[in-house]
Order: sequence, then structure tokens, then C-alpha cells
Amino acid sequence: MKPVQHIKIGRGMKISELVKQMENSGVMGAGRIAKATEIMGRMFNDKDCKIFFGVAGAMVPGGMKELIIDVLKTERVAAFVTTGANLVHDLIEALGNRHYQGSADVDDKKLHKMGIDRIYNAFMKNEVYAGLEKFFKSHYEEIRHFTKINDFLWKLGSLVPAAAKDSILKVCYENKIPIFCPGIADSGIGLMMWGNIAAGKHCDLQAFADMDDIISLAWKSKKNGILYVGGGLPKNYIQQALQFSKGASYGVQLTADLPQWGGSSGAELREGISWGKMNEKGKFIDVYGDATITLPLVWAAVKDKISSSALLSPKPSLGSLMKSDRRKG
Amino acid sequence: MKPVQHIKIGRGMKISELVKQMENSGVMGAGRIAKATEIMGRMFNDKDCKIFFGVAGAMVPGGMKELIIDVLKTERVAAFVTTGANLVHDLIEALGNRHYQGSADVDDKKLHKMGIDRIYNAFMKNEVYAGLEKFFKSHYEEIRHFTKINDFLWKLGSLVPAAAKDSILKVCYENKIPIFCPGIADSGIGLMMWGNIAAGKHCDLQAFADMDDIISLAWKSKKNGILYVGGGLPKNYIQQALQFSKGASYGVQLTADLPQWGGSSGAELREGISWGKMNEKGKFIDVYGDATITLPLVWAAVKDKISSSALLSPKPSLGSLMKSDRRKG
Amino acid sequence: MKPVQHIKIGRGMKISELVKQMENSGVMGAGRIAKATEIMGRMFNDKDCKIFFGVAGAMVPGGMKELIIDVLKTERVAAFVTTGANLVHDLIEALGNRHYQGSADVDDKKLHKMGIDRIYNAFMKNEVYAGLEKFFKSHYEEIRHFTKINDFLWKLGSLVPAAAKDSILKVCYENKIPIFCPGIADSGIGLMMWGNIAAGKHCDLQAFADMDDIISLAWKSKKNGILYVGGGLPKNYIQQALQFSKGASYGVQLTADLPQWGGSSGAELREGISWGKMNEKGKFIDVYGDATITLPLVWAAVKDKISSSALLSPKPSLGSLMKSDRRKG
Amino acid sequence: MKPVQHIKIGRGMKISELVKQMENSGVMGAGRIAKATEIMGRMFNDKDCKIFFGVAGAMVPGGMKELIIDVLKTERVAAFVTTGANLVHDLIEALGNRHYQGSADVDDKKLHKMGIDRIYNAFMKNEVYAGLEKFFKSHYEEIRHFTKINDFLWKLGSLVPAAAKDSILKVCYENKIPIFCPGIADSGIGLMMWGNIAAGKHCDLQAFADMDDIISLAWKSKKNGILYVGGGLPKNYIQQALQFSKGASYGVQLTADLPQWGGSSGAELREGISWGKMNEKGKFIDVYGDATITLPLVWAAVKDKISSSALLSPKPSLGSLMKSDRRKG
Repeated sequence: MKPVQHIKIGRGMKISELVKQMENSGVMGAGRIAKATEIMGRMFNDKDCKIFFGVAGAMVPGGMKELIIDVLKTERVAAFVTTGANLVHDLIEALGNRHYQGSADVDDKKLHKMGIDRIYNAFMKNEVYAGLEKFFKSHYEEIRHFTKINDFLWKLGSLVPAAAKDSILKVCYENKIPIFCPGIADSGIGLMMWGNIAAGKHCDLQAFADMDDIISLAWKSKKNGILYVGGGLPKNYIQQALQFSKGASYGVQLTADLPQWGGSSGAELREGISWGKMNEKGKFIDVYGDATITLPLVWAAVKDKISSSALLSPKPSLGSLMKSDRRKG
Repeated sequence: MKPVQHIKIGRGMKISELVKQMENSGVMGAGRIAKATEIMGRMFNDKDCKIFFGVAGAMVPGGMKELIIDVLKTERVAAFVTTGANLVHDLIEALGNRHYQGSADVDDKKLHKMGIDRIYNAFMKNEVYAGLEKFFKSHYEEIRHFTKINDFLWKLGSLVPAAAKDSILKVCYENKIPIFCPGIADSGIGLMMWGNIAAGKHCDLQAFADMDDIISLAWKSKKNGILYVGGGLPKNYIQQALQFSKGASYGVQLTADLPQWGGSSGAELREGISWGKMNEKGKFIDVYGDATITLPLVWAAVKDKISSSALLSPKPSLGSLMKSDRRKG
Repeated sequence: MKPVQHIKIGRGMKISELVKQMENSGVMGAGRIAKATEIMGRMFNDKDCKIFFGVAGAMVPGGMKELIIDVLKTERVAAFVTTGANLVHDLIEALGNRHYQGSADVDDKKLHKMGIDRIYNAFMKNEVYAGLEKFFKSHYEEIRHFTKINDFLWKLGSLVPAAAKDSILKVCYENKIPIFCPGIADSGIGLMMWGNIAAGKHCDLQAFADMDDIISLAWKSKKNGILYVGGGLPKNYIQQALQFSKGASYGVQLTADLPQWGGSSGAELREGISWGKMNEKGKFIDVYGDATITLPLVWAAVKDKISSSALLSPKPSLGSLMKSDRRKG
Repeated sequence: MKPVQHIKIGRGMKISELVKQMENSGVMGAGRIAKATEIMGRMFNDKDCKIFFGVAGAMVPGGMKELIIDVLKTERVAAFVTTGANLVHDLIEALGNRHYQGSADVDDKKLHKMGIDRIYNAFMKNEVYAGLEKFFKSHYEEIRHFTKINDFLWKLGSLVPAAAKDSILKVCYENKIPIFCPGIADSGIGLMMWGNIAAGKHCDLQAFADMDDIISLAWKSKKNGILYVGGGLPKNYIQQALQFSKGASYGVQLTADLPQWGGSSGAELREGISWGKMNEKGKFIDVYGDATITLPLVWAAVKDKISSSALLSPKPSLGSLMKSDRRKG
């Protein structure tokens, strides 16, 4: 048995040093952080591994956009699965708007009168929807004829104004990273599309058209890795695809949900072994806690572990984009 | 200020008596249970109120199917929004299979070898998928030409074998209760459809085709009420539609998620006031805890409060079904 | 494998009927409620079993006083272990004051100005401390010469005004139920004693004097049962004593804490097997959730299961009280 | 309104840089971490501030011993309040034993047979109690005549073998930091004392003898600061003492408990304003999550903020120890 070594904190300490200390303690949440870092280090360094990256929760209003982009920009992410909400908040920022540092101890009636929408302690001006509406109206003809949600989202990414320095949609588009968002109707993007559809202009997006891509990815890969930030539909949709693989070889989930309630969001990765979603020999860990704390901590330590070859190679020319060869596994 | 009166327990006590005691204590979780009961009583008795019922989490494997059907069978539920998972587990049972009482303290590798899929401490034989596959294959021509997910799900409901005594899909079909399931691709139902689509047979289901129905419902109703079991996409999709209403007049959510993590699932209903999803004068309450405990408790007490007129009127003839006049609000 | 049978709710339903339904579903939180009821039914009916009842959390401000008294009044409770806070809130009510139904969404600065102390959404007038002070001052000579905390608390119970209809302290005194409260200094009772000690009047209470009683109880009993409402010091103190027994034969804990954080409060009862606190063949269950919901529900169902012999026999004459023969096991 | 700036992660990043980024994002858990760091930075740099440091939960088995010692060694900690469990686990290590990295997914019956006690996923050999017993037996005459628990614990600290490099008890003793542990009976230390008391050798420790010291400290200080790791008795005991102060000027709590359950452990620091425990103008923050993650992260960032004058001045000569002038405020 390895002894629990107590964590020592020095001045000017690096994150990777702290995580090394957590590896030496090896128990409770600290031990989980260390194990998540170790597994992620392996999975991002393993050239045979396709990583499925699922993100739920208010991660863009929560300040995690750049970090998500950073993960996406590694070469390893083969599929990005997220909620419509994170994409619409990304687009809102890409169109020049911001989220603000607010408070949850407020009078929501006052906020309503001021035209401020609350996302826990993040605020957003309701007027951002006017900008969204204009964007979707002006580009509607360009975006309504896709059948795959992924192609539609890539197109949105291509339309993000050049002024937008950073955007998840744009980065996925530019780097040919498939975006799966089966619940896209449940978002401001859905609403904007509905507004135009309701005005009589049909949209071709189909409900099941993207499924083959994610399942093929899982099926054809030598090895799969999973990184879940939150649960929800992104996690479950990836888990579903993994049933058609040998089971994930690596798995890390960072979640504030818990297994005791019985739902998919909080389910232990171990449970996936029974289903064949996780490989029996896979390495995995569940990290419980607020992902706006655990994700930056783990990712910073992982970055110090992954080789430069795992970081994004030069951007492909845009001409090659719609071939979407990457997502074919 | 009303004093906290201590809860007294008698022998042979009725649930409504217990909840009355909880009303008299009025604080902590007990107070929330009582308030949820009171608000639900009002909302199910209010003939002007259209109820949006959102259900996430493993509620069918968790033994809540009959209870969900019971709620659906009241006249008040104008929209049922759920995850694909709950529908597929409903269908699995409708096709003659069962879920089983298992344990979370097990060796998942052994379960995998035995062909048992684990959902926390509920077990399911993996062979249920063979039955599903057969069902979808034999009915594929009948189900692939819908554009609305709701119509598709109603059709599934109509195809449920007569032998199936109880089924959510069937009850929604028979009672013309719109089912919204924007994340349907993320479920065994999605997988079964994919299997047929991948074999070259196109399916017409569209991603945004159901949005107008739920938004119109919210918009046209005199009053709206919300009942959330869990969060996730069902809650958020209803919240989104409510932005086009005067804001819900009544709201009850039963959830094991918490607001502190910042996501939509755990967000307090109060937050919805800032967005206009909840009416400023609306009555609402958040009940924190395992919904397999809180939902039966609250619903039993609510049933004792709601008038028979709130219970389902005679089933409409099936011929009138596809007119779907009910969901037009 | 037993199938999950779905919970059915009828009108005018009894709690024991609901819990029977939960037994038939058998999974998630509902299954835990049913199992807790079954185990508690056995343990309260088992004449060989001494029950250790631990209560933490704001249970008196939370409206659970009568219910706690109801449990105490069964013949089976051999030891009551609680926090100083619950005892002082009991005493506050015994002296004629009340707790009030408040709100957590308030301005605490305003409450402070109004002289109202907040306990989540329960309110208490700060002036109650004047009554406490008077009570302790007037009785100080009678209470300062005990060495055991239990004897001291029984004495307090004997001094509770006759007008106080219900009081935990009084019921424990009258029924010779040992009260263990090792953290008594951490409470308003402690403060009141300090006030008098600081005025130069020594108090004889000793820190370790009660340990022999609780350990002897655990050691000498044929069988032990545990019922934990919340964790904290009450749970841990009982667990400690059980190390000197054959391990508890029955165990139920109702807690909002969770094992994942590694602490004693949320630890699964199963963990106690490794320590010998829980017997290897013991029956036990952990119920996660707000105890102001789960405790009334479980206790109501248990009451329908326990025989009248488990309910309190005629009160002993007060003269026999201080012999404290009962707690000797 | 300050915009949410997204967290950027660089290679070789320092913890203080990460926390600076969290300050810029300013929302959800990340915002809380940053605010905790800022408030702790101020409170440890404020020479007028006496810090009350409360530690609950399995922090020593959880690998936090060195970190706790690091906090204690600053000049600012005026009172250390903890559970008996943390002190006994400290003493166990001081006597040459270790905790080990184990697992929670184990058969506790096997552990029991192997003589291993489980603390979530930390293991401990049960034989450590033999060492404890020997220690207490050999030193019993030296330790049994204290009346204050603090003096008793300091004496234990003085008896820690020289070979023990690091020990909380020893550091508190050597640096004259008062240790308050009102629940000391609820611990292995209590058990060891009981063993000797039961053999007929009286111990003089009194239940209320330490109260005057902690209340005086709170009362006499110009300013008070609070740092809570977990809740339980340590938090509540400090909160109680603060009622006799102007209310804490600074407050940080790191806890996995939550306010919704109504108990003291999870209560927001804001609640303390109503009681006068927290000053109306005080700066405070609640950080929700596993303290073995949040504490190292926050403390590392705080260390980079606090001046060397806040770090321990040269150790006082042991001769001056028992004067305990420091704790007199």
C-alpha cells in the first residue's frame, strides 16, 4: 500500500507541482484531480486515441470558453458534443456581446425590468437577442439547407465575424472538429431558426443525420478517450456511440452531479463497463465538484504533460474543410 | 410570523395528513414539500392553466412510470417534455421486458459478461435491444415519414402492443398529449432509427419542426404552469418556450441538482423571473432531493387536492388524434 | 432478479401503502426509503436490540421535535446522542418561545437590526437568550455540581416548566433515556454555563465522564441498532462506542451528506464493517436527502410496523430516575 | 458591470496566475476561489486581525496535514478549532504510523479480516491503536491533571516523539496556538483517556473550561477573521464565540456541505450577519466543493499574497509556553 503523503504548498508554486503533490496524497478529491491529470496526459499523448469531448453546463457564461477552445485545438479531439446553450453563448460573444460578473443574491424582478437575464451569478443583457436575430436573418439563406447539424454549426462558425478573436464555433469550423449537438432545438440558435421557419422558410436540418458520423468515429477508432465536463445530453450521446466501439480506453469526467440520484449525468464511468461503453481495461476517474474549479486545475496540469505533437498542427486550408475527412475516423 | 409547528406522526397516517403537518412546520425540505403540494393543487385545479411537464433522469428504470402516466392522464398537462432515455425505457417495457432491482455495489465486469446493463442500482438485460430492433425494423415504413418528432412518437405510441398495459408513449398518443423530445437522437430510439437509416432508408424527422407547437402553446395559453422532475433538456426546453408567454403562473421543480453549480438543471425557478420565463406574480417552489422520493410524496398529496374535473375526461376517439387540436392551445 | 414495479398513487393513500409501493419498485431513493422502513421496523420490534439514536442538523428549528420525541418514547431507544444546538432550541421552546417560518432570501442586515437570528429559512428572536439566561441563573446552583453531561441534561429536563407540553430534554429525563452530548460546550447551553462560570462559580462537568456509559451500553447489549439523522458528532460518537460491541445488527442513516467527500458525516454505513462498528451480517441502508422529508416519511411507515410493546411502557416513577439503571444496559 | 473574462491556461502556469484568471472570470466556482484568495490575502496581511481556523472532515487522512500546519505557522492564527478525529489521526502519524491510499470500491468484510480501517478511500491499520494505547498509558500521569482541553492537547503536543517531523499537535504546542476541541471525547484520544479512567484513574478535564479563552479572544480582538474547512462543531464553536465580538471582518469557508439542508455546517456565512457573527461590513465568501481540492488551490495562491511578516516569527522559547499570553488576545 502506498502511504498518503501530505500536500506541501510552496511560494510561487506551479500547478503541475501541486498536482504532483496531489498524486502523492492520492486520496479524496485531491487524489481524483491527480488521477484525472494522469489519465488525460496519457490520452492526449496517445496518437491512436480519438477523444470525445462532451461539455454541458453554463460553461461559456462561466468563463470556460478559452479553455474549451484550448482543448479543442489539440489534435486529439475527434468529436465535440455540447449543449445548444453553450454554442449560443459562444455566438453571442462572437457577435460582440459579453457576459458580466453579477450575483445570485439579487431581486430578479429588478433584473427583469433592467433587461438583464441571470445565469446564476453571471448576467447577460437581453438585447443580445436582437443581434442574434439580425445575424440569423441576414445569413438565413446560407444556413438553412444543411441536413446535418454539424455542417450547419460549421457554417455558423464560418460566418462568425472576423473581429471575433475567439469562438468555439469558429475554431471547430477552422479545425474541422465535428460538433455534435443533438439538442440544438433547445437553444437560442433553435429559436432563431424557428423565427425564420415560422415565417415560411423551410430549414432542412434533420434529427438523426449526424448519428452515423459519431457512431462511425467511435467504431473505427483504434482507441477512444472521453472527457466529460458535466453530464446531460453531451455525455449520454457520447456514451451511446461508444457502445459501438471496444469501449473507451481512457475516461475522465468532471461533474458536480452525483451517482446516488441514479441518472446518467452523475453516473460513475465504471457503470459504463456493464454496457460496454467503457473498456474493462480502460483507465478512468470521476472528479466531483464545480467544473469551473476542477477543469482549469486539471487542464493546466495536463498541458504540462502533453507533447507538442498533441497540440494542433498547422491549420488546414479552409478549402479542404467540407470534406470532413477528419471526422470519418 | 407564523410559528414552526412540529410535525406529528400518527399510526395509519395518510400522506395528505403528513403534508398538512409539513405545511404547519413550513421550513426546510418539509416546508418545500408542502408548498409544492399547495402550488400543484392550485395549478391542476385551474382550468385556465396549461401545464408543461418536464421529466429528466432515469425515471422509468426508477419505478416512476405509472406515476408519470397518472400525471399525464389529468386534463391539465398540455405538453410532456422528456429525454429519449425515458421513452426508450418505456418502450422496452411496453415490448414485454422489465427493469430489475439490482445494486450499485457490483463488479461491472461481471455484469458485462452476463449481458446486464446497469443504471445505478437498476439492472436491464442487454437482450432488450434485440426486441427493440425487431420492433423498429417491422414498423419502419410506418414511422419514417413524419417530420415532427411529436407525430413520430405518437405513432410509436399507437404501435405499442395491446398487451402492454401501461405505457407513457401509448397514453400520450391516446390522449393527444404532445410529447416533445428534442434530444431524441440521444436514445435507443435514435439508435434504432439510425440502424435503418444507415441501411439506406431515409427518415424525414426534422430538428426544428416541433418548436412552433411548444412555443405556440406557451404563447396562446391564458396561464402556464410548470412541473419539472429533474432538469436537463426537458426543463430548459420548456423554459425557452415560456419566454414567449407571460411567464409561468405556477412552478414546481423536484430536483437533486443544485443552483450553486450555475447550470440550467439546478437553477432556482426564481432565476426565470429575470428572463420572463416565470411571471413576477407566479407562485413557485424548488424541492431539492431524490425525485423518486419527493415526486410520489407530493403527487399523492396533490391527488387528494385536485378535483375530479382535473382528472382525465373520457378518452377521445382515436380518429381525432392526428388533428392534434389540443396542442394548439 | 426482482422486477422494478412502478409506484402507483391512489387517492387518500396511506403512507405505509406508499412505502409498500416503494418496496416493490426497490431502486434509487424510493428503494432506500422502503429498505430503511423495513430495517427500522425490525429493529424497533426486536426486544434484544438497544437503539442508538443520533440526531444532528437543525432538527428542532426544522420542525422535527415532536417526531424525535415520538422515537424517543419507544422502549427501544437506549441512547440519544445529539448536538448542543438541538437541545438549546428544545429548551428555548420549553421556556415558551418559538421558531418561525421565515425565508433564506432575505437581507440579513435587516434581520440583524430587527433582532432576528436566521437558521436557513427558520427565524428566531434573539431575545430568547434573555429567557435562557434567566433560567440558567435561577437554577445554577442546582445544575452545576454534576460531573456527567447526561446527569446535567436530565436535570435540565427536570427543570423544564410544567407548562412546556413537549420537550426532548423533559422526555429523556422522565423516561430515563441517556442523553449524550459530548459537544455541549458548543451551544447556547454552554454559553449560559460559561456566563455563570465566568462570574466565578465553578461547574463540575467533566469532558470524559459520560464515555463509560455509552461504551458499556454498546458492549453489554445483545444487539445494537443505529438510527442516524444527519452525521456530525452524534453519528461519530455512536460509531466509536460500537467498536466495543459485536457491531450494529441494524443500521439506518438519513442524511443530506454524501460519502464522496470522505468525511464521517457522509460515510456509508458499509464502511463501518471494516472498523467493526457494523456487524458483517447486519442489515443497513443509507438514505440520501433532506431529513425533514425522509424522516417523517420513514417514521410514519415504521410506526405502522412496530408493535405496541415497542411503544413506551408506563412512565417510571421519578424517584427511580437517578438510579439510571436503564442506561447500564 | 465587469465582463466575464475567459480563463486562459498556459504551460508551466503558476497557481497564482490561474487564480488571477479566476478573478477575471469572476463567476461560479472559479469566481469563488478567486474571492476566497483575495479575502484570505487581506486577512492574513492584516496585523489587527485574529484568525479563527476551523477544520472538520477527514483532513489528516485526506493528506492535508502539512497544509494545515502551514496555515497554523503564520502569525495570524489565533485559535485552531478541530475535531478529535483530526487530532488523533495526527497523533497516529506522529507515533510513526501512516495512512494509505486505498479505495472505496472494496469489500469491507475483507478489510475487517485484514485489520484495515477504511476512511472513504484512505486505509489505516487497526494496529495503530496499540501504539496509541501504549503512548497514553506511559504518559497518563503527565496528562490527566489538566482542566482545560487546550492545555491537555498542548501537553500531548509536547510529548510527540522528536522523530515526528511534522505534527499539528506539536506545532500548536510549540507556537502557543490555542487548540479548541470541545468534542474531544468523540475521538481515539477520548477512547484512550477513557481506558485509563475506567481503570480507576481520574482525569480532571472539564467540559466548559476552555470557553472563556475562545470567547475572550473573539471579544478582545480588534478584528476577527474566519477560515473554515468543513463545517461541524469547529465552525459552529467559532461562530458561537464571534457573537461576543463585533462580528468577523473577514470570512472564508471551504465546504462540501450546502445551505439548502438548513444545518450549521452548510450555512452561508451571510446568515451569520443576522446573528452578529459576521460583521455587516465584513468581506466573506463560501466556496462549495471538496476541500482537498479547494484548500490547496486557495492556500497556494494566498501564500503568494501574504507578506513575510504574516509568516511565523522565530519560535518562542518553550519556557514561555504555558503562560499562554497569545491566546489572551
